[in-house]
Amino acid sequence: MTLAVRYTGPRTVDTAPARASAPGPGEVELAPAYVGICGTDLHIFHGDMDARVDRPAVLGHEMSGRVVRVGPDVTAHRPGDPVTVMPLRWDGTCAACRAGHRHICGHLDFMGIDSPGAMQQRWTVPADVLVPLPRSLPLDRAALVEPTAVAVHDVGRTGVRAGERAVVVGGGPVGVLIALVAQAAGADVRLVEPGAHRRRRAQDLGLVALDPATDDVAEEVRRWTDGAGADVAFEVSGAAGGVTTAVDVLGARGRLCLVAIHARPREIDLHRFFWRELTLVGARLYDRSDFERAVELVADGTLPVERLISKVVPLVEAAGAFEALEDGGDVMKILVDCGDDTHGGPA
Amino acid sequence: MTLAVRYTGPRTVDTAPARASAPGPGEVELAPAYVGICGTDLHIFHGDMDARVDRPAVLGHEMSGRVVRVGPDVTAHRPGDPVTVMPLRWDGTCAACRAGHRHICGHLDFMGIDSPGAMQQRWTVPADVLVPLPRSLPLDRAALVEPTAVAVHDVGRTGVRAGERAVVVGGGPVGVLIALVAQAAGADVRLVEPGAHRRRRAQDLGLVALDPATDDVAEEVRRWTDGAGADVAFEVSGAAGGVTTAVDVLGARGRLCLVAIHARPREIDLHRFFWRELTLVGARLYDRSDFERAVELVADGTLPVERLISKVVPLVEAAGAFEALEDGGDVMKILVDCGDDTHGGPA
Repeated sequence: MTLAVRYTGPRTVDTAPARASAPGPGEVELAPAYVGICGTDLHIFHGDMDARVDRPAVLGHEMSGRVVRVGPDVTAHRPGDPVTVMPLRWDGTCAACRAGHRHICGHLDFMGIDSPGAMQQRWTVPADVLVPLPRSLPLDRAALVEPTAVAVHDVGRTGVRAGERAVVVGGGPVGVLIALVAQAAGADVRLVEPGAHRRRRAQDLGLVALDPATDDVAEEVRRWTDGAGADVAFEVSGAAGGVTTAVDVLGARGRLCLVAIHARPREIDLHRFFWRELTLVGARLYDRSDFERAVELVADGTLPVERLISKVVPLVEAAGAFEALEDGGDVMKILVDCGDDTHGGPA
Repeated sequence: MTLAVRYTGPRTVDTAPARASAPGPGEVELAPAYVGICGTDLHIFHGDMDARVDRPAVLGHEMSGRVVRVGPDVTAHRPGDPVTVMPLRWDGTCAACRAGHRHICGHLDFMGIDSPGAMQQRWTVPADVLVPLPRSLPLDRAALVEPTAVAVHDVGRTGVRAGERAVVVGGGPVGVLIALVAQAAGADVRLVEPGAHRRRRAQDLGLVALDPATDDVAEEVRRWTDGAGADVAFEVSGAAGGVTTAVDVLGARGRLCLVAIHARPREIDLHRFFWRELTLVGARLYDRSDFERAVELVADGTLPVERLISKVVPLVEAAGAFEALEDGGDVMKILVDCGDDTHGGPA
């Protein structure tokens, strides 16, 4: 018998026995090693997504692990292989899929939300969601590949070029990863984050972090850019004020990437979009090339993602980790150690 | 002594004597033939732009005419040449100009708003704002080149491709021109316009026009696109509801071009931008290549712009034309005939 972390209802997560299922044709059974807890998992934990999430639900979509068994016709993977999962399944037939945008499929199955996720000791998935990892990459670090893929996608959506100036509004894990990926693309970056702990963590990573409570962000950006305004902004805060800041800092033809989820409509200064010919780009998830690029950036050490890991907790203590994250404050990324002896480090 | 149409204060336009000035070095004196009255001219007429417009102000920026005299060092133009004017002057030094976006210069002089315009019998302008016209192009039709350049710019900002489906929200002259330019680029187009007269005019031009008061526009578009949603939308109405419609009709990765001026912030469904990875693009004015393309489209008959002309009034009756337009209703474009015998038709 193996264990799984399950969301059973608002503010309730338990760790309960689960049954492993042998991989069928085209499937692979994984032993998840580490699984990150993400903002979306917290939304589920709050009960905000009960309309979408069946209960009990096994959460988790930021993972690393190893192959345990493969289905009869699976030849591309072997037991022991280190892998991560790009947790998306699409129908392949809807308008978005036909137009080549499968990651925003009209009937997307986001594994860990719409179907069982990785926060368990055995996870059977279709082989085509696997993304191989280099054997040299520690599996705790590899659990950060998924949010890094989000950042790669976001930076790609705005086409950040070397020498450009970018402002990232919101300094949680995704905001910091966007800042690091944009920096890796040659941009000069400012991060805006009200939380002192998160600002300090960003500064430890060499980022310049502004506090919107005490800094006049738009004025700081004007000074930094000699009056031109920023080329790119990323709205990662989810707050109404974050949208305003992201619009305000942009110069002529600036591009704003909308990363955060805004459940409510926001007032936008459209005159500024007209006057400066700004662009707003929605960005959601990632595609395969983003994921593979994220593996490279994490594996070759370009992004020191291990420094975003605040804590690693065993599977049986996952509930406490959700509560700690809900308190917000002094954490960035918490990983759940799925506690099987099959990982343990690079082979 | 020549005559000029002047805005002297809210709801007041007169036709008064003006003094022609001999063209200095680098300048050309024009005899405007026809000058269109534009939505911006109406905003000025309403008094909405008094903070920006010096009074008395000679209005007019949609023009055609002929060269009368050239300054001492001007060799590229000769008396009698038919021309239009791209009415923009930039400082060439600001951040937008340095980035190559001179048409959104931080200190833009929009002739006819920020400096004297074309609604007069003699207009002295810098030679570099002239755009030559083919001699075969009737000058009344040529007065539509400027709004056509707006439409060319807007369609260009969204990169409309052949076979794409585009929705234009707002069926005034610019909306109709956008629809025609998008159609010329190979798009299939639907126009949304609440005014019965404007819908009829659009239908006369072969466009399919929906009435947002009686048609469920989003549903119509879904049906038309087999559930996919539109590829492109243009918000040309300036109304809050127009923005909502333009967002609602778009499918995955749809692009929304913001053409109209929205003086007040608008509520936008950002979740939809995220979910469908939509793009919003602000578009303002045009650049030289847009203007030259507009001359081609008007001159070669691709766009039957002459059918947008509701009425031509003599210079001395311009005030009445402003009042007629203010009543809205049954007019599209009114041209002011600057009434000099130097034009009179193709040479």
